[in-house]
Amino acid sequence: MEKCVVLRLSNKDADFEAKFRDLLAGKREVSEDVDQIVRDILDAVRLEGDRAVLNYTRKFDRLDAAAMADLTVGQAEIDAALEEVAGETLDALRLAHDRIVTHHARQMPKDDRYTDTLGVELGSLWTAVEAVGIYVPGGTASYPSSVLMNAVPAKVAGVERIVMVVPSPDGVLNPLVLAAAGIAGVSEIYRIGGAQAVAALAYGTETIAPVAKIVGPGNAFVAAAKRRVFGTVGIDMIAGPSEVLIIADSTNNPDWVAADLLAQAEHDAAAQSILITDSAELAEAVEAAVEAQLKTLPREDVARASWRDFGAIVLVGDLEEAMPLANRIAPEHLELAVADPEALLKKVRNAGAVFLGHYTPEAIGDYVGGSNHVLPTARSARFSSGLSVMDFVKRTSILKCNAENLRALGPAAMALGESEGLSAHARSVSIRLNL
Amino acid sequence: MEKCVVLRLSNKDADFEAKFRDLLAGKREVSEDVDQIVRDILDAVRLEGDRAVLNYTRKFDRLDAAAMADLTVGQAEIDAALEEVAGETLDALRLAHDRIVTHHARQMPKDDRYTDTLGVELGSLWTAVEAVGIYVPGGTASYPSSVLMNAVPAKVAGVERIVMVVPSPDGVLNPLVLAAAGIAGVSEIYRIGGAQAVAALAYGTETIAPVAKIVGPGNAFVAAAKRRVFGTVGIDMIAGPSEVLIIADSTNNPDWVAADLLAQAEHDAAAQSILITDSAELAEAVEAAVEAQLKTLPREDVARASWRDFGAIVLVGDLEEAMPLANRIAPEHLELAVADPEALLKKVRNAGAVFLGHYTPEAIGDYVGGSNHVLPTARSARFSSGLSVMDFVKRTSILKCNAENLRALGPAAMALGESEGLSAHARSVSIRLNL
Repeated sequence: MEKCVVLRLSNKDADFEAKFRDLLAGKREVSEDVDQIVRDILDAVRLEGDRAVLNYTRKFDRLDAAAMADLTVGQAEIDAALEEVAGETLDALRLAHDRIVTHHARQMPKDDRYTDTLGVELGSLWTAVEAVGIYVPGGTASYPSSVLMNAVPAKVAGVERIVMVVPSPDGVLNPLVLAAAGIAGVSEIYRIGGAQAVAALAYGTETIAPVAKIVGPGNAFVAAAKRRVFGTVGIDMIAGPSEVLIIADSTNNPDWVAADLLAQAEHDAAAQSILITDSAELAEAVEAAVEAQLKTLPREDVARASWRDFGAIVLVGDLEEAMPLANRIAPEHLELAVADPEALLKKVRNAGAVFLGHYTPEAIGDYVGGSNHVLPTARSARFSSGLSVMDFVKRTSILKCNAENLRALGPAAMALGESEGLSAHARSVSIRLNL
Repeated sequence: MEKCVVLRLSNKDADFEAKFRDLLAGKREVSEDVDQIVRDILDAVRLEGDRAVLNYTRKFDRLDAAAMADLTVGQAEIDAALEEVAGETLDALRLAHDRIVTHHARQMPKDDRYTDTLGVELGSLWTAVEAVGIYVPGGTASYPSSVLMNAVPAKVAGVERIVMVVPSPDGVLNPLVLAAAGIAGVSEIYRIGGAQAVAALAYGTETIAPVAKIVGPGNAFVAAAKRRVFGTVGIDMIAGPSEVLIIADSTNNPDWVAADLLAQAEHDAAAQSILITDSAELAEAVEAAVEAQLKTLPREDVARASWRDFGAIVLVGDLEEAMPLANRIAPEHLELAVADPEALLKKVRNAGAVFLGHYTPEAIGDYVGGSNHVLPTARSARFSSGLSVMDFVKRTSILKCNAENLRALGPAAMALGESEGLSAHARSVSIRLNL
């Protein structure tokens, strides 16, 4: 293959702002319009339950099951998967699991109950979502690490029922995925996928009781289905292709920076790897190192396409200038591969996860760091966060007045009720105050 | 009008489960299919900016503005509104504002930074969303209290730019809404609404810089537009018609219970008021009191339609039996109007807000309690929470390894990377460890 020509920008250039805006606005995904098909699938599953799920599984996954029992994964199958997986990988999965549990346990919110100066009691009580569905893609994107990252926060939150769906096209199922589900303590597993799996989780069927929230990445059908069932159930963010922004100074080994850029690029031809540096020398060296390393990668095609089409190297006058650009990019992953990462960290406003210093390749966060690898993509770190325990709990607010403080607050409530034309609101107060 | 015949159930009846399921499954809204129109409006605003917004405002709001400047509300107009609003109402708005600020300030999450047993540094840092859009409906649903409930949590979270959009059909704008915006410290106000306002907030126009998140209720067009721009920006829940569940024992004054049921019913013909009680006597008395009070309500038509079509009285053997039913209903508002509300509170799993005892009518929570009145409707309290400061902040996770603990964790990350077919992930670790 030919050498990639990667986009190179410098914030000294007169047209920098325009080119940087183009970089920000660049669409890396063609969004297929599958709305009508998905609508039909959702309707069919809602009306016909299991029968529709079986039909679509036959059609899309080429899996001819007579009954949902044949698509249900039992403990024996999970045990077999745990046997089958190599010891080293199983140990790594268990280490990852334990570290994810420890980190996420710190995220549990605390109940708050207090009495204010008027004697009114207020509060916020947190409870776990009762049942959660986890979508796991089939095929090459069927990652055991993602099973852990989705299931563990739910488990830590106290979700009683965790239902995993994973398509097994032509009957093929990755034993690592089952092993991860076993380690994480998933409650139920079904070999189904696509919009029909999302519908089964949202509406329920004769076999699958409905859940209250659905998380996990999927293809265009899954994304469209999640968007449509939003409201009936909760959903997580719609995941886009992955991305990394590395801010690097001249203290770096260019081979390490190149390796991190390519770790992102190998995910997907639509992935994006961006380097911002104050060192023209480092920029040159990294570009050369990327080219050299690309040639030795098993997933060279994917990584090369990503780097060629969406990669970028941005030269800035000094590292301080990098931060406003980084916050505009709002990257999923931000590596601060600089001598003093803490100084730059203080200026981070929008980023899913930050990796500090030279010894924290983003891949550590993907697997065994303990933090979650489900992170906001496509600039959504401007308004959303990575998956956490908070996604599996909900807050109930508490209010308790007595006769005395109702008398103090009531007239204001009545005034506002009347001002909004809601007399019955006002009366529900006045009737208690004999007004 | 004729006396309402309200649905009456008893959990002693043989067909109770079937009838209760029907009650749960009941749709209270006809969802208009406005997807195609909304798609066209979004596309037009994205491509043509201000011009499209002006055109749609002319068409839908019958407001002929030559330029966006004419649709921009300045400080003078806010000051005039503050002058115009009656002193008592203004004082009530200010009291509400201050109480909402105090309560929401307690919701601010704290940063967490720690070093684990291996010496790996981890953490969660919270930052505010930079810019938020608040949609305020026009017409009769244009509530100043909702302006406070949406704007204050954003302000408390530290959002720098709060942009309010509110349609003014035929030029009519509720001065109370402007006054509330002034009190809350909204940054920018535009007299626009519908899908075109959502589009302007999400994509930006020449006049309106884009925001990162859009909150606030709206009609079918607004809801469909929010669903479509989700991903480009964050959105809050899609709000449905309001609802209350009152659990009441024989210690109640039936007139008070009836007043609370009607305070909900007067919102909207699609609102829902449900009473669960262990007292057949109270049930009878409340039903009679509702009928009597209905006749004196300015919004009798609306409240009567709601009570007739969606109201229900459920008789249970004892109060303990009420709680599993309440958790299945997952009400937006739950009143525990019983002698010992704390005992029942312990059993609440799914509810947006709980109002305890005989002296906490839900209307206090709507206005001056301090907690938020933007709460999950249509059973979504199973998976979501009322609006809070948490909706206007996002979390960035932090990971920092050194050479030593990278050596400890690295091999497991490499094993998982290789097991997922992601060699460049493994290499980004091994290259640092000279493996």
